[in-house]
Amino acid sequence: MTKQSNQDQKPRVVIVGGGFGGVAAAKKLRRSNVEIILIDRRNYHLFQPLLYQVATAALNPSDIASPIRQIFRKQKNVISAMGEVEKVDLANRRIYVKGQAISYDYLVLAAGATHSYFGNDQWSDAAPGLKTLEDATEIRRRFLLAFEAAEIEIDPDARRARLTFVVVGAGPTGCELAGTMTEVARHTIPADFRKVDTKTARVILIQSGDRVLRTFHEESSKAAHRQLEKLGVEILLSQCVTEVRPDGVMCGDTFIPANNVFWAAGVRASPLSESLEIELDRSGRIKVDPDLSVPGYPNVFVIGDQAAAVDGQTGKPVPGVAQGAMQGGAFVGNIIRHEVEADSQLDRGVFTYFDKGNLATLGRNKAVADVAGIKFTGIPAWIIWAGVHILFIVNFRSKVSVAFSWGSTYFFGTRGVRLITGKSDFALKRSPTLDR
Amino acid sequence: MTKQSNQDQKPRVVIVGGGFGGVAAAKKLRRSNVEIILIDRRNYHLFQPLLYQVATAALNPSDIASPIRQIFRKQKNVISAMGEVEKVDLANRRIYVKGQAISYDYLVLAAGATHSYFGNDQWSDAAPGLKTLEDATEIRRRFLLAFEAAEIEIDPDARRARLTFVVVGAGPTGCELAGTMTEVARHTIPADFRKVDTKTARVILIQSGDRVLRTFHEESSKAAHRQLEKLGVEILLSQCVTEVRPDGVMCGDTFIPANNVFWAAGVRASPLSESLEIELDRSGRIKVDPDLSVPGYPNVFVIGDQAAAVDGQTGKPVPGVAQGAMQGGAFVGNIIRHEVEADSQLDRGVFTYFDKGNLATLGRNKAVADVAGIKFTGIPAWIIWAGVHILFIVNFRSKVSVAFSWGSTYFFGTRGVRLITGKSDFALKRSPTLDR
Repeated sequence: MTKQSNQDQKPRVVIVGGGFGGVAAAKKLRRSNVEIILIDRRNYHLFQPLLYQVATAALNPSDIASPIRQIFRKQKNVISAMGEVEKVDLANRRIYVKGQAISYDYLVLAAGATHSYFGNDQWSDAAPGLKTLEDATEIRRRFLLAFEAAEIEIDPDARRARLTFVVVGAGPTGCELAGTMTEVARHTIPADFRKVDTKTARVILIQSGDRVLRTFHEESSKAAHRQLEKLGVEILLSQCVTEVRPDGVMCGDTFIPANNVFWAAGVRASPLSESLEIELDRSGRIKVDPDLSVPGYPNVFVIGDQAAAVDGQTGKPVPGVAQGAMQGGAFVGNIIRHEVEADSQLDRGVFTYFDKGNLATLGRNKAVADVAGIKFTGIPAWIIWAGVHILFIVNFRSKVSVAFSWGSTYFFGTRGVRLITGKSDFALKRSPTLDR
Repeated sequence: MTKQSNQDQKPRVVIVGGGFGGVAAAKKLRRSNVEIILIDRRNYHLFQPLLYQVATAALNPSDIASPIRQIFRKQKNVISAMGEVEKVDLANRRIYVKGQAISYDYLVLAAGATHSYFGNDQWSDAAPGLKTLEDATEIRRRFLLAFEAAEIEIDPDARRARLTFVVVGAGPTGCELAGTMTEVARHTIPADFRKVDTKTARVILIQSGDRVLRTFHEESSKAAHRQLEKLGVEILLSQCVTEVRPDGVMCGDTFIPANNVFWAAGVRASPLSESLEIELDRSGRIKVDPDLSVPGYPNVFVIGDQAAAVDGQTGKPVPGVAQGAMQGGAFVGNIIRHEVEADSQLDRGVFTYFDKGNLATLGRNKAVADVAGIKFTGIPAWIIWAGVHILFIVNFRSKVSVAFSWGSTYFFGTRGVRLITGKSDFALKRSPTLDR
């Protein structure tokens, strides 16, 4: 493996992305005599699995985001830098940030994924996705504004469209969004409105496949389906959305009038991958060798959502979830650590993915969990879900804050973050109440 | 006073603005047989005195904002509506929202104030003010980005400008911003950066008058001045800012290179006042009679920052602070309540302002307080300040969250909300560390 070109310089490991994968890789190298440059477009590590809770006004952005600098405050071999990597030059072992070249001995690509509209990017304005904090506060803004608009709308059809929420895609994010939105409309806010009955809000979950949560065990899918329907979510399976407009969606041949559409369907790996000029899969992910390195470039690794990796033992694809990224990060961190220390080439082995289980929460006391082959639903699943998530949130302050927020939502049914922020072209409508 | 024009309709009280004044007025009417329409551009009541803590990454937006609907959830005579009032038609007793007329029997104007650049609105991009949550997150973004940019800047002069923060105006907001920013740079974040010494950051507080906190007692001014200097703030008194540019400010004849300028100098009442076509003072505030009504329109009241009111007994101007607005709101709420109940005209009396004291916090254990004629500084003032503010924050959840955040900032020196959100054209600079 490549060592330092110059005897007085430590080997440099450049990590692109401060998500679950990038952070795990850097942490594995904490005792290594390397220089780590961790580059991210943001100054924070984001706990993405809880983004939908920011979007539904339960948590604050800061509850699920930790400054990267703070995470590595004591790990002095990490230099954290904010910036967007535009290009990777594999041949010359350099990446480019705003035209500036940064050389590396090892490169770990962990730039993640964004949502994909399957070639219909024009839908993004009408149907925002949920990958960033800005996405989450935008969805929160639209979700809360819908009720404000309905409250002063006099036309019954228009009011109905204001109160119709369509969620496209029934993976964990889509199910969690749909379940929580229904719960807010039916249980949290009815007493706050004078004119509109927020309980009449419709939440429609559309899925192209034949079941919700298709990455879960089939029994858990069924349990989730039942729980969502019990909450009041309308589920449309085996249906494709063929058009998204500001006033609704075409679902097959049917038009569903809805002013609020949210996108939780497709995922596409970071566009950075394209600059490598190597083979990508259909979702734009980089096809990697069993040791997670790029074919022909043993000093370049790809982990997390940016990689199309398969389990070295089972041959099954590694799913694009937090655990996959974390395990990949730890695996490549270990390889680099050993190679740097031993100063010789070792057998790297193959990456195997250990599935700790799948979790999704759908509302108060409503959740599904596949853990160690056992399926939980309802309250036990909800408790496992809450415990695991609090455990994995990075810093202590957030753990307490999140626990407190969940406690008050659970026991008092309140949601603490009902703020409509950002630009809004909201217009008060002529209303029989206000006009006399 | 005007009663309902129609026997089967309750008298309608329209309140414009859900700040301290508007909320206080509506609460005084909780047992009255009136219909209250409370209109605000936002869906939340904002605890403005703590905005600077959002701007300096100590608190979350939701900690200092409560949904207006939630505040009045149980007060069924309040209809809350989101919208921007564009015009008041005094003669016909109507206000206009997006062209729609809303009639009133009583009108309470409590639309507050915005910052004023004294005719230099072109400075607003380079020197944002602090009146809204969006302002606060924008200042937070710039404040935190400054250190990110300095970390990767190689030119010493450019780095110095990145780390120079100018605060214009030394009222409570200016002093609190300057003190807290210094504390963050010197105590919170130094260990997080590898290249730049954040302790070298300069915070310069510029004030046109001859002392800081001129609304406070002179002794408290002096104490605040001493405490700010001890923290490391550079204070320039009797100096006027004559130009603001993205690369610095002209202060008299001297140019101060600084990439970060924050505006805490001027205040101007809501532009809504201009639509009334009545007499305004220099700051755009409406001159009111001693009962806070508009001359010639006894059913129209103006309270808080939108009013140029004088104390009915001392003849001194009522200061533009939260207590002034709350007391004004309660006073006019009472007048309306009595007139509606008694169905006859009473002697309204004159509004007198009771000054409960002034408080400003400048850093950990650093504060000044004028309470009941007694001056406190240092730790006692800081404790009074923290207690009073937690007491007045509207909802329980926020009280706990704020207390927890302050506790962890106090004891561990952490700040939980160090997030750079929103659009950013941040560029990674060529750096000797990264480039080899």
